[in-house]
Parts: sequence; C-alpha cells; structure tokens
Amino acid sequence: MTSRRIRRLTDWHRESLLGDVLPFWLKHSVDRKHGGYFTCLDRDGSVYGRDKYVWLQGRQAWTLSRVYNEIDRKEKYLETARRGIDFLLRYCFRRDGHMYFSVTEDGRPLVQPWWVGSESFACLALAEHAKATGDVGLLRRARKVFRDMRRWAKKPSGFARIDFPGTRSYRKLADPMVILGASQEMETADPTGAYAPVSRAAAREILGAHVDSTRRAVFEYLAPDGSHPDTPSGRLANPGHAVEAAWFCMREGDRRNDPSLIARALDVLEWSLGIGWDRRHGGILYLVDVDGKPPEHLEWDMKLWWTHNEAIIALLYACLLSGERKWERWHDRVLEWALAHFPDRRYGEWFGYLHRDGSVALSAKGGMWKGCFHLPRMHIVALSLLDRMRR
Amino acid sequence: MTSRRIRRLTDWHRESLLGDVLPFWLKHSVDRKHGGYFTCLDRDGSVYGRDKYVWLQGRQAWTLSRVYNEIDRKEKYLETARRGIDFLLRYCFRRDGHMYFSVTEDGRPLVQPWWVGSESFACLALAEHAKATGDVGLLRRARKVFRDMRRWAKKPSGFARIDFPGTRSYRKLADPMVILGASQEMETADPTGAYAPVSRAAAREILGAHVDSTRRAVFEYLAPDGSHPDTPSGRLANPGHAVEAAWFCMREGDRRNDPSLIARALDVLEWSLGIGWDRRHGGILYLVDVDGKPPEHLEWDMKLWWTHNEAIIALLYACLLSGERKWERWHDRVLEWALAHFPDRRYGEWFGYLHRDGSVALSAKGGMWKGCFHLPRMHIVALSLLDRMRR
Repeated sequence: MTSRRIRRLTDWHRESLLGDVLPFWLKHSVDRKHGGYFTCLDRDGSVYGRDKYVWLQGRQAWTLSRVYNEIDRKEKYLETARRGIDFLLRYCFRRDGHMYFSVTEDGRPLVQPWWVGSESFACLALAEHAKATGDVGLLRRARKVFRDMRRWAKKPSGFARIDFPGTRSYRKLADPMVILGASQEMETADPTGAYAPVSRAAAREILGAHVDSTRRAVFEYLAPDGSHPDTPSGRLANPGHAVEAAWFCMREGDRRNDPSLIARALDVLEWSLGIGWDRRHGGILYLVDVDGKPPEHLEWDMKLWWTHNEAIIALLYACLLSGERKWERWHDRVLEWALAHFPDRRYGEWFGYLHRDGSVALSAKGGMWKGCFHLPRMHIVALSLLDRMRR
Repeated sequence: MTSRRIRRLTDWHRESLLGDVLPFWLKHSVDRKHGGYFTCLDRDGSVYGRDKYVWLQGRQAWTLSRVYNEIDRKEKYLETARRGIDFLLRYCFRRDGHMYFSVTEDGRPLVQPWWVGSESFACLALAEHAKATGDVGLLRRARKVFRDMRRWAKKPSGFARIDFPGTRSYRKLADPMVILGASQEMETADPTGAYAPVSRAAAREILGAHVDSTRRAVFEYLAPDGSHPDTPSGRLANPGHAVEAAWFCMREGDRRNDPSLIARALDVLEWSLGIGWDRRHGGILYLVDVDGKPPEHLEWDMKLWWTHNEAIIALLYACLLSGERKWERWHDRVLEWALAHFPDRRYGEWFGYLHRDGSVALSAKGGMWKGCFHLPRMHIVALSLLDRMRR
C-alpha cells in the first residue's frame, strides 16, 4: 500500500470514528435516567424500543473505553462508558453469575441467559474500563467473568434451552471465537495473567476443526467428532463470521510470531471471500450453504454491515502481514462496495441491513444486534494497523 | 362474480390442487422408511434436510385427509395421511401430553414444545382422519389434544421458555386463532361436541381485543390489560395473520348467521390490506410496524406465499358474504400478483419466499415453516366457497 493511500485511509477512519459514529451514539443512545444504552435507534437516532440488550451494553462500554485508551483521551468517552459498566454490574448478572440476554430500560430481566455472548462482552468492557481507570476491582471482576465464560462455553449449564438434551449437539464456531477474542483482549488489559495458552487452544480449535481445506470452507457447526453432518446447519457457512475468526487468528499468529498460523488464517480469508462475495450484486452474502442447497434463513442473501466491517479489518491485517497485492485489491473492493451502500448520508452512521441488491432493507441504525460496536471497532483496529503499516 | 369467472376459478383451483400441488408432495415428501413427511424440499423436490417438524406433520396429514373427505376420494391420499398420523402418535408426544416442535427423521426428539402449534395441527389431523376412517379412537384422541391445547393456550405450562417469568407478558393473536381454527374444524368432525361457545369466545377475543378500530389495525401482541405497549412487538402488525383471522371470523359469522361478526371481520380484511399491500412493488408485506417505525425482523418486507394464500381465501369469503364489488377487485389483484410471482413454472408448486420486488429469495419448496398446507388449503377452501357462489 502506498504511503499516500495509508495516510488517506487513516484520515478517513479517524474522521468517521470521531466525527460521525461516536457522536451519533453519544447523542442518541445514552439513557440519562436509568443508565446504560438504548440501541433500538431509528435512522435519525430516535429511540423506537427501550429494552436493553446486555451484550450491546458491554460492547458499547468496551468501544468507548478503548477509544479513550487508544485514540482520543476525552472525558466524555470515559464517562459514557461508565454508564454502561454501572448498568451491567447493577442489573445484568443473575445470582448464579450468568448474564441475562436482555432487560427492561430500568433493569428488570426479560430474556434468560442462553449463551456466553453477554458475558464475553461484559468481560471485555470491564477489562478495558479497568485499564482506563486503574480500578483493580473491575479487573478482578473481568477475570471472574472470563473464567465463568470459559467454563460455560465448554460445558453449557445454567442456560435456558429449548433443544432436547442428548439427541444432537453441534460444536459451534462462535464458542472458540468468543474465547479467543476475549482472551486476546484480556492479555492486553491484564499482563500478569496467563492468557496465551487459552488463546492458542482456541485458535487451534477454529483452524483445526472448523476449517476444511479440502472443501475450502469454514463450517459454523460441527458434529462432536468434528465431522460435517449433512444437515442445513452442518452445511452452513457464515462468511462474515469466518473472516472475523480469520483476523483473530492473524492477530494470534502476529503476537506469537507464528507464520503458519497466519498462513492458515489467510486461507480462511480467501476461501470465505470466495464463498461469500456476491458475483451478481457485489458485497458479501450473510449465510451460504456450502453445497449450494437452500439455506434455512430467510435473510441469507442480505448484506449486513458487520460482515463488511470484519472483512475490511481482516483484509487490512492481510495487507500488513503478507506482501501479496491481492489483499489490497480485495480490501479496496470490499471497502468501496461498503462505502457505496452502507453510510447514511443524511443522518450519519451506517445502515445495518441491505437487500441483496444493495438497497436499504431496514432504516434502523441499531436494534437487538446492531449497536455501537462493529463499525467503531473497525475504525479502531484499522487505525492501529495503518499506524504499523506507516512505520 | 360472473358465473363464467366462478367456473374458471374452480377449474384452476382444482387443477392446481390435484394436478400440481398434491403430486409434488406425494412424490417427494413421503418417508417410506420411518414414516411421516420430509418438508425440507428443494425446488426440484430433493430433500435437503431430514428433520421432521411436528406441526408440518399434522398439517400434511390434515390436508390429505380433507382432500380425501371432500375433493377426491382416492386411496393414495388416505394412505399417505395415515403415515403422518402414525408418525405423530408414535414419536411426537412427550410423556406429559405436550408435543415436540421437531424430531429427527426416525423420531428422536430435537426441539422441546414451546407453543401449542404442534398440538393444534395434530388435533385437526386426528379429527379429519377419524372422519375419513370412522376410527372412534382417533376422534377421542383428537378431543383430548384439543382439551390440552385449550388449557395450555390459556395457561402456558410445560413449555420450554427463555423469557424471564413475570417481567412482561403479551397476549398473542396466535392463541385465540389456533383455538378458533381448531374448534371450527372439530365442530365439523365431532358433531356431538359443544364447540360453538369455544369458537364464539375465541372470535370475540380476536375481534374485541386485537382489533383497534380507531387505528384501523390488528395488533399481534397486547399487554395483559388489552392496551398497546409502545414496543416493537406492541406495534407489530402481521397482515397475513390478520387476514387469516378475518376469514376464520367470517366463517364463524357465516355459521352462526351473525352479520355483525362478518362486518367486523370485513373491516379487519380491509384495514390489513391497507396496511400490508406494498404500493411500491405490489404483493403483501410480511410484517409492518403500525407507527412506521423499523420492524425488528430482517425479513419484514419479504413476500411470503402463505400471506397471499390467506388473503385469497379471505377475499373469496368476502365476495361470497358481501355484495360489494371492491372485494372482487381486491381478490383479482392479489391472485394476479401471486400467480405472476410464486408458481415455479419448471418444477411445479410455489416458491415460498420472495424479495420485496417479487424476485425469488429462497429456492426451497419447503422447510421448517412451509409444508403441504397453506397452498392446498387455499385450493380446498376456495373450491367450497366457489361451489356455494355457483348455487
């Protein structure tokens, strides 16, 4: 990448993060009455739903703390992060340590814990906020949540379930991914802890079991023995999820100076773009049946903002770690498609959900799944990668 | 409607039912090894998933038994219906009487009961099959399932749940609808039972509580006191569901000779088409926020086959029960749009899921939600309505 291109990308990421994305969330999402954040925000930022999704509370608190720590040391980010941290600590933990999926605006439980998603982002938020404030109590709490989450990801217990136990179980790509993502973050916030072996095992689980190099695909669900069941779930690829896993693994290989780990992560990136890139309309498809059978999800061919955020991070990482020109071409192609379709030129921030042809399907800026996270995280990670590329 | 038009519609419904739809399901869905029906069928009928969804087993067994009873007394329909009945009785009931949501192809439980949907269609299937065969044991079983279902719909218990009890509860349009639908069917299969009061109460619940004549809308979810919570669920309209409820209520008014019930059902039909008809591309939208805020569901603007089947039935009913010309115009508009977009000219039957613009989103003929039910039921009900219009 030319230094001119690096400079221009840096300017754009910084400007979008600090001048567009964060102002949108600071202005519209903060609940000044009960604490925490609204995330059901319409196009113009108006609140269309007041329930609070626990993982989005953690994600926003992490984002704001990280911006404070790494990008822009302004009090408003720290203060607003604190509102999320307090809400998490006060309302979102069940007595047994599990975290609810959602609560009312004033913190009454709505949906029971059903996966470690809430815990994983609470852990990140607590650790990052502890780094910003030096609050050792918060760091201790983050360590406890991390331990709990690892235990529950391995041996689910205490979760609300509607599946019948024992008939069929899948190993989910999401499980080693949340462990790897959280472990890598904990390592930077808690230098005394022994996170490297945890990250290594999670990266191995992702690249060993879920990646099938014969079929050149990453599978979301595996049978317990690692085989691929011939079911819609067993054939499912989620290219955005896979490229997110790819950059987690690149980061792992980068930190441990492990070129073979990086090489395998680059394979994942290449295959996932091969499977996911929509040759008809451009952009990355959300869900694909690897054998070309019909996916179960009605939204399979939609274009989601986060898929594109994750691909842009993964491709910048690939540019940094590999000399090959193809990654820069892919990066430019994905970024160009994303910028042509996702940004809302009227009210700022990005739309989250487009039809296959790139037209806007949902006007919302946030909801149950979209909050202040993937887009700003893309900017944050990109700025640090571009900074290394410049040097 | 002119008698020529009635004749042509009759021919088309009959031909599509017996010459296209039923042959497709008889050929591709029957599991000759384990009994029951596959419903995950791709465009050409090939099986892409082998799990069995309990409510779709009941729906297909009902459809085939009803065709045998009312349209075409061929042994193949009865025999194939029996395979579904046997599968339901052998594998789909939990010990406490609740029915699973899904099981494996050989009948091992996969997903726990979470609503009375499975029971409601098993009840219909058992009763209709009892009518075909004179099997009193089956009718007794249908009566028991109907009683259980009514109890559970009123006071949910024994269901797998992930919501936290007590914080928020909704009254769901689906609850009185399944009761009304099943009660009306039971009445024809079990003339000795006292179903009329049950149907009347359910119709009153639908038209009284869920229909808001000031806002000219039918609401899917109500607060326990009947008010409309200002939440995405509280603002949700499902026009296809509402028009289905409308024809159940027209049928009720028709049977009880109650013009005021019919008049209110016609209002529901008119308002739901007003809310649901897509002025941009034609067809009926799946889910709409009555206040124009963003719906929570990514698939909100898709066009689903069943929505259009239900609207066609409701509009034919309206033509029969009301002299107003507008219903025939609406009927023709909806049928024309449906026929221009849903039928698969290559492999027969209808696609289930279209994008907003009418292009095919999913190639599948069936899955977890689409089976041998809405399309053939439209034909079956239409044939009986057209028969009455002719006389």
